[in-house]
Amino acid sequence: MRLPVSEYMLKNLAAHSRSVRCVSTIATSEPTAPSVKTAIPGPKSIALKDAMEKVHQATSVKFFVDYEKCFGNYIVDADGNQLLDPFMQISSLPLGYNHPELIALAKDPRLMTALVSRPALGGYPRTDFANLITNSLRKVAPPGLSHLQTMLCGTSANENALKTAFIHYQTKKRGGKSPTQQDLDSCMVQQKPGTPSLSVLGFEGAFHGRSLAMLSVTRSKAIHKVDIPAFDWPIARFPRYKYPLENNVEYNRKQDEDCLAHVKELIQEWKQKNNDVAAVIVEPIQSEGGDFHASPDFFKRLQKICQDNGIAFIVDEVQTGGGTSGTFWAHEQWNLPTSPDIVTFSKKVLIGGYYYKDNFRINEPYRIYNTWMGEPTKLVVLEKVIEIIQRDGLVQKTKEVGQHLQNSLLQLASSHSNKVLNVRGMGTLCAFDMPDSTIRDKLINTAIANGLHIGGCGDLAVRFRPALIFEKKHVDVAIELLQQSLKQLK
Amino acid sequence: MRLPVSEYMLKNLAAHSRSVRCVSTIATSEPTAPSVKTAIPGPKSIALKDAMEKVHQATSVKFFVDYEKCFGNYIVDADGNQLLDPFMQISSLPLGYNHPELIALAKDPRLMTALVSRPALGGYPRTDFANLITNSLRKVAPPGLSHLQTMLCGTSANENALKTAFIHYQTKKRGGKSPTQQDLDSCMVQQKPGTPSLSVLGFEGAFHGRSLAMLSVTRSKAIHKVDIPAFDWPIARFPRYKYPLENNVEYNRKQDEDCLAHVKELIQEWKQKNNDVAAVIVEPIQSEGGDFHASPDFFKRLQKICQDNGIAFIVDEVQTGGGTSGTFWAHEQWNLPTSPDIVTFSKKVLIGGYYYKDNFRINEPYRIYNTWMGEPTKLVVLEKVIEIIQRDGLVQKTKEVGQHLQNSLLQLASSHSNKVLNVRGMGTLCAFDMPDSTIRDKLINTAIANGLHIGGCGDLAVRFRPALIFEKKHVDVAIELLQQSLKQLK
Repeated sequence: MRLPVSEYMLKNLAAHSRSVRCVSTIATSEPTAPSVKTAIPGPKSIALKDAMEKVHQATSVKFFVDYEKCFGNYIVDADGNQLLDPFMQISSLPLGYNHPELIALAKDPRLMTALVSRPALGGYPRTDFANLITNSLRKVAPPGLSHLQTMLCGTSANENALKTAFIHYQTKKRGGKSPTQQDLDSCMVQQKPGTPSLSVLGFEGAFHGRSLAMLSVTRSKAIHKVDIPAFDWPIARFPRYKYPLENNVEYNRKQDEDCLAHVKELIQEWKQKNNDVAAVIVEPIQSEGGDFHASPDFFKRLQKICQDNGIAFIVDEVQTGGGTSGTFWAHEQWNLPTSPDIVTFSKKVLIGGYYYKDNFRINEPYRIYNTWMGEPTKLVVLEKVIEIIQRDGLVQKTKEVGQHLQNSLLQLASSHSNKVLNVRGMGTLCAFDMPDSTIRDKLINTAIANGLHIGGCGDLAVRFRPALIFEKKHVDVAIELLQQSLKQLK
Repeated sequence: MRLPVSEYMLKNLAAHSRSVRCVSTIATSEPTAPSVKTAIPGPKSIALKDAMEKVHQATSVKFFVDYEKCFGNYIVDADGNQLLDPFMQISSLPLGYNHPELIALAKDPRLMTALVSRPALGGYPRTDFANLITNSLRKVAPPGLSHLQTMLCGTSANENALKTAFIHYQTKKRGGKSPTQQDLDSCMVQQKPGTPSLSVLGFEGAFHGRSLAMLSVTRSKAIHKVDIPAFDWPIARFPRYKYPLENNVEYNRKQDEDCLAHVKELIQEWKQKNNDVAAVIVEPIQSEGGDFHASPDFFKRLQKICQDNGIAFIVDEVQTGGGTSGTFWAHEQWNLPTSPDIVTFSKKVLIGGYYYKDNFRINEPYRIYNTWMGEPTKLVVLEKVIEIIQRDGLVQKTKEVGQHLQNSLLQLASSHSNKVLNVRGMGTLCAFDMPDSTIRDKLINTAIANGLHIGGCGDLAVRFRPALIFEKKHVDVAIELLQQSLKQLK
C-alpha cells in the first residue's frame, strides 16, 4: 500500500529542491565577538516594521532577527548586527540559537508527524507519549511531585494550575466526593454551590500571564492591566530587600515578617468576604516585576501558612525553571520540608504545564482538558535538550558561570557605585538596579548599540537571562561591554 | 566562520543515522477501506493507558494512535486498527494525516530555525514575518477585516479578542485617548476607573475555551465549569430549531425573535447593574454544545443590536473556520452588511489568533502581548496548507462533498426515521441527533467498532468534522458504516 522509501523521498526532494538547497543557510558556529554596523534598529529593521504594521501589530517590535544566521549566544539582526544575547527571547531558549543537535531533529520522523498530524492529546495521544514524558519532563521532575500535566504556554499552565487548586479545594469540602447533581446544575447558571466564590492570593510586583484570570494576580505594570476587568482577589506585599544582604539582615528579616503578616491578614479578610483563598501563587524571583528575590525562609513560612489554612501552594517557575538558577528548579534551593503542591513551567522547558502532588490528582475526566493540551513536537525537542543538559552538566556549569557573573557585577558595582546598585542573582538569573528608569533605559540602549542585548525589568532593573550555554568567556565580553556603556552614560 | 554545507550535513547525518533510517516509517498512502482487528480500545491501547497513568493524566484518553502509520482520512491506532476518521483530532487537521507536502517541510530551514530558535514574536520577529503572514493568514482574511494578531490556541485567541474589545470600549469612553494617570494608578489596586466593571454576553450551549474567563461564557457541559469561579456575565438563549427547516419556518423564526429579545433584555439588565456588556461572542455553529445552527438573519440582527449598543461583535470561528463550512469562514455565508468586529480562529488554521477591524487597533505597545504570541513554525506549515487548499480548490470541493454528505444523511434519516433526527449541515460540518444520549453513545461506539471514527457533541448529536480532503468516496464508506451500525443497535 505504501510507496517505497526512495520513491517517496525522491518525489519530495524534487518538489522541494529550493528548500533543500536553503538548508545551507542555517548558521553552524558562534561568532567570537559582537559586531555592530548600524544603529539598532537599523534601516532594514525599520523598513520591515513598516511592512509588518500593514499586516500585523508591530508596536512593541524592537528589531527584526535573521534567525537562520543566529548561533549559540549570538543574535543577528536584519541589518547584520551580531549581538551577544544574554536575554534569549525573554528567557525562553535553553540552548541558545540553532543548536545543531536540535536542528538535526528535522530527520526524526516523530517530529514531523507530531507537527503535521498534531494530536488532540487528551483523547488520542501518540503510542510513545509515556516514553516521551519519561525521557523529558519526568527526568527533571522536582522531588516529591509525582504527576504532571502538559499545556501549551505559561499562561495556560497557570490557568490550569488554578483550576486544579479550585477543584481540589471544593473536593475536600465534599469529603473527597465528585460534584453533586446540585453542583452540576447550579454551575450552568453560575450560581453557588457549583460556581463557588473562591480567590487566589498573589503578590505586588508579580507576573503570571495575561489572560483575564492571570492578570488578576499580576501586578508588575499598569499597561498590562488597565481597562481589563478583574477578579476580586487579594494581593500581598512581597519583600523588597536591601543589598548587600549580609549588611541588611535585620531590615530584610523585617521585610519577610511584614509581608507574611500581610498574607495572613488577607487570608482572613477574604474569608470574611466569603471569598476564601484557595491558592497562593508566587514566583521564586519576581522577574517581569523587577527581579525581586525573597529568602528561602520567606518561602518556607509562606508554604506553612498555606498548609495551616488548607490553601494550595503554587510556585510559578515559568521564568526560573530549566536550570539557569543553578538547580533545575529554583525552588529546590529553598529546602522546603515538603514539595510545593503545584509547580508550573514553560519558556526554557519549551512546552507549558505543571507538576502536582498526588493528592491534587483529579478523578473525573474532561475537567482539565482542551484540544491540544500541549504539543508532542515540543517533547521531541525537549527530550534532546534534557539529554544535552545532563550529558554536558550544564546546570552545574551554569551555577559556576552564575557565580562568576555575580562576582563580575559586584566588581562593576564597586567601580560604578552611584550607578550599579543592588547586585543580586541565583545562578545566571542575575540583575542590578540603576538610580532611575531614564538612566536604566539609556544603559540598555547603549549596551545594545555596543553589541550586548540585555533586558530591563520593573522600573529600575537590568536583568540577565542567558541560555545554559552561556560561559565565563561570554560573561567577560558582557561585563566589558557594560563597563564601556556605563562610561558612555553622561 | 561557518562550516561548509556538506561537512555540516554529513556531521548531522552521522550523528542521526538511526533517525534518518526511521523516515521510512511515515505512511505515504491512504488505505482503501477501514480494517478493525481488535476491540477499540484494544489491548495495546489499554496497556499504554496504564503506562501513561503513571506519568500523566490519562482519564479522557479514548485510544492511542500510531501517528506514523496514519494517512489522509485514515487514523491507525496502537493495535493496528485502521479507521476512517471524519473527526480529525477534534476538527483540527486541515489536510488529514501526514500530507506528504507538509512532511517535506522538514527540509525547509525556516521550519527548523523557527522551532529551535523560537522567537518572542512581539519583540523580535523573523525578517520574513510579514511575508509569512501575507502568504498565509492574509490570503484567507475575511472581507473587511484588515488587521490580524497571532496567538497560540483558540482560548488565547478568544481571551485576547475580549481584551481588545474591553480596551476599545474604554478608549471610546475616553474619546479615543490613552489611559489617564488615574486609570493607570487605580488598575494596579484593581479599582475603577482603571479596572472597569465590564461584561461579555455569551449564549446557552456555547463553548469558547477553558480558561476562567472563557468558561464564564461557556455553557456546553457542567463538568467543564463545576467548582471553578466565574465572572458575572450574561448568558442569552440561542435558537433551537426544528427540522426540516422548510417545514418549521414560523417556529424557527419565533426562536430567533425570542433569543434576540433575550439578548436585548440582558444588555439592559447588565447596564443597570453597572456591568455594561462590552462584547458579544458567538459561534456560527455551537459545536461542542450540540451542533446547533442559527439563521443568517439571526446573526445579522444580532450584529445590528451590537452596533446599536456600541458593543463589539465577536465571531468565534475556532471550530468553523478553515474551509469545511463550504466557505473559508462560516460567517461569510450570512451576507452581513459589514464584517464582524473581531473573528477568532485556531484548530484547522494551525495557529491561534484573530482578525479585527481597523477601528479596533490598539495604539499603545505591550497591551496585547506575551512571550510567544503564536509560533512561526505554524505559519510555515499554514503557508503550504493554504497553497494546497487554493491550488486544489478544496473549499469548493468541500462544499460539494458537504452537499453529498447532507443528502446521504437525509436518506439515512428517511430509512431510520425513529433514530436519525434533525439532519443539518454547513459544508461538511454536518450533524444529526438521536433520541437520547444512551443510544447516541452506543451508535458512536458501534461505528468505531465498525471502522468509523465519528464524534459526539452535546447530549444528542453525532457530528462530522472531516478534513478538507474528505471526498465523496469517503462519505459513501462512512454512510455504509453508519447504516450497518444503526442496524446493529437493538
